[in-house]
Amino acid sequence: MDIYLDNSATTRVSPAAAQRALELMQQEYGNPSSLHHRGFAAEQALDAARRELAGILGAKKEEVYFTSGGSQGNNLAILGGAMAARRRGDRVVTTAIEHESVLAPVKHLSENGFQTTLLPSTAEGIVTPEAAEAAVDEKTVLLSVMLVNSETGAVNDILSIARAARRKNPSVLIHCDCVQGFGKLLVRPQSWDVDMVTVSGHKVHAPKGIGAIWVKKGVRVRPLWYGSGQEGGLHPGTENTPGACAFATAARELWEKRDENMAHYQALRDRLLCGLEKIPGACINSGRYSAPYIVNFSLPGIRSEVMIHYLEQQGISVSSGSACSKGAKSHVLTAMGLDPRRVDSAIRVSFCRDNTAEEVDTLCHWLAQGCGQLAKVRR
Amino acid sequence: MDIYLDNSATTRVSPAAAQRALELMQQEYGNPSSLHHRGFAAEQALDAARRELAGILGAKKEEVYFTSGGSQGNNLAILGGAMAARRRGDRVVTTAIEHESVLAPVKHLSENGFQTTLLPSTAEGIVTPEAAEAAVDEKTVLLSVMLVNSETGAVNDILSIARAARRKNPSVLIHCDCVQGFGKLLVRPQSWDVDMVTVSGHKVHAPKGIGAIWVKKGVRVRPLWYGSGQEGGLHPGTENTPGACAFATAARELWEKRDENMAHYQALRDRLLCGLEKIPGACINSGRYSAPYIVNFSLPGIRSEVMIHYLEQQGISVSSGSACSKGAKSHVLTAMGLDPRRVDSAIRVSFCRDNTAEEVDTLCHWLAQGCGQLAKVRR
Repeated sequence: MDIYLDNSATTRVSPAAAQRALELMQQEYGNPSSLHHRGFAAEQALDAARRELAGILGAKKEEVYFTSGGSQGNNLAILGGAMAARRRGDRVVTTAIEHESVLAPVKHLSENGFQTTLLPSTAEGIVTPEAAEAAVDEKTVLLSVMLVNSETGAVNDILSIARAARRKNPSVLIHCDCVQGFGKLLVRPQSWDVDMVTVSGHKVHAPKGIGAIWVKKGVRVRPLWYGSGQEGGLHPGTENTPGACAFATAARELWEKRDENMAHYQALRDRLLCGLEKIPGACINSGRYSAPYIVNFSLPGIRSEVMIHYLEQQGISVSSGSACSKGAKSHVLTAMGLDPRRVDSAIRVSFCRDNTAEEVDTLCHWLAQGCGQLAKVRR
Repeated sequence: MDIYLDNSATTRVSPAAAQRALELMQQEYGNPSSLHHRGFAAEQALDAARRELAGILGAKKEEVYFTSGGSQGNNLAILGGAMAARRRGDRVVTTAIEHESVLAPVKHLSENGFQTTLLPSTAEGIVTPEAAEAAVDEKTVLLSVMLVNSETGAVNDILSIARAARRKNPSVLIHCDCVQGFGKLLVRPQSWDVDMVTVSGHKVHAPKGIGAIWVKKGVRVRPLWYGSGQEGGLHPGTENTPGACAFATAARELWEKRDENMAHYQALRDRLLCGLEKIPGACINSGRYSAPYIVNFSLPGIRSEVMIHYLEQQGISVSSGSACSKGAKSHVLTAMGLDPRRVDSAIRVSFCRDNTAEEVDTLCHWLAQGCGQLAKVRR
């Protein structure tokens, strides 16, 4: 048995995306900067990929820059955005529930003369427009708020948060980490009135090693490194054309079926919630405003790693939270004010379109079995 | 007809490397940080790839860090190395013939308080140990010298240059951009007594978007960005496992047949040189110390782009120099002291193992034809 329910950690590359990557590796393999037909063909392919992603973001292709992934994109927005805006102020605001690739560069800024503020999480795992409005002031150069939390699926109301922040400071740069939302939820940077958005390939059935950042025209971002100026100088070096083209292919596939995918995630979530209801003591950590493809719950009394290992033996892959944290105590659930024992027993299940109702039933079966057996062991 | 002779710009991904990438995309697709079997399998694959590359470098796997490519690797070494060593001094030395991904970060350092020196090129396109010894002093924190020049193929004597530099300052960090040498020439950072070496995947029949940096144990490098600490904190973010594993596969393939490949490059070069001898006025820009897989020559009176376009019409892809420079005047040939007209008419031909004698003959035929026809047009 092999049931993969950890799609927020990473996804299997879709056949069409893998095929597209292969074409770029072996046929359209030119360097986009080369002046001959192979270079031109590669440049055209890259351009088409950029246009495709821009379309899904409702944006212009000139505003989309390919990166090596979500972490680099978040850093470009935060380090690059804040440093470029430094003469306007020295304050940066983010939230207590961000991914490490947002929190770490914010920490770096705080060690380099910036004042940083973390917006608190509600019990539902979101941040409020009121909190953003209270924290942003005329010295704030950057506000970074994620769309979908990777551990709980909580969806922030970016439109209202951006509006609230701009009431206090119309020129604050607003960045939104959309890594866990892109391809599934509507990501509309222009309507939201934000300045930068990060997306990543490997969360949407594209290969690892590719991502993109949308930067509103006119917004200045300082590069993280320097070279021959590719990607508007934001990602110098020969472009990852297989990654970029596969990313566009995978994103289009996912986005074209977003409604049917969403109904599928919801059905899987409902099935899982039904199963969890039958397990005494099980409690759901994902709040009311959560995307249906991430379900976080606790089975109090059974530590996350013990249950993960048990499920693993049954051929089921889930996680305790962000893969990047490698099993460390969840800062997200802690920020939501959850009891430490509930934090220590959290399990994250994250769906993709390929998961089935039978897989969820099997998971529920082994969760129930596990709760019985592991509880016995403890006695 | 389709003859690709621009392998220093980029290469076609080998079937075995593409196959390996595909396996990592669709079978071993886990996130190496995940705590279940899919994560473990991905971590194992990544570890094997790292060991493979380390083996080719004669180094330990703990000293190899994957990057998104050569440009990022060069920047890590230069920005990261110099910034981490800043309290030891404020001088950085490099050469006039480096790639833009070395020159640009060095320029950035010069704009941020560092004194920078460019070692001159000889007429053969190399830098001498004497020049390095003269430029390095007790305030020099970093010396960066490339192994193989991408435009001329000139090979620097890194061992002697490093030894000369250390005579003046034993603790100077020495970085070597080996992007154009790796997989073909012996790259031995430990024997050379250097501290950092950059390599890139897409120059050795691996996909674009992957590279690696070797950093000697104990050498401190400041990251370019921050996150969950992958790759020793030097490339935070989910690892590009398809890229890394394909890189290792491609590098091993190339390295295993290095002797026979080298003989093949030499035969192709000799054939090209014979052909060029028959073209009145043709002169070779690659010097005595050049690797055989890059041949730079000028056909005076015919501008590079005119000849490139002409060859392109015959189905032959060559370049005027670095793809990244997009046809700008060569700073390398200029640094070698070549006459501007010779610089303006330079053509770079770069071989891979798959090129054939027949392809070189066809190139020579059209070079001769082109010289006749294009000269007529000018009259």
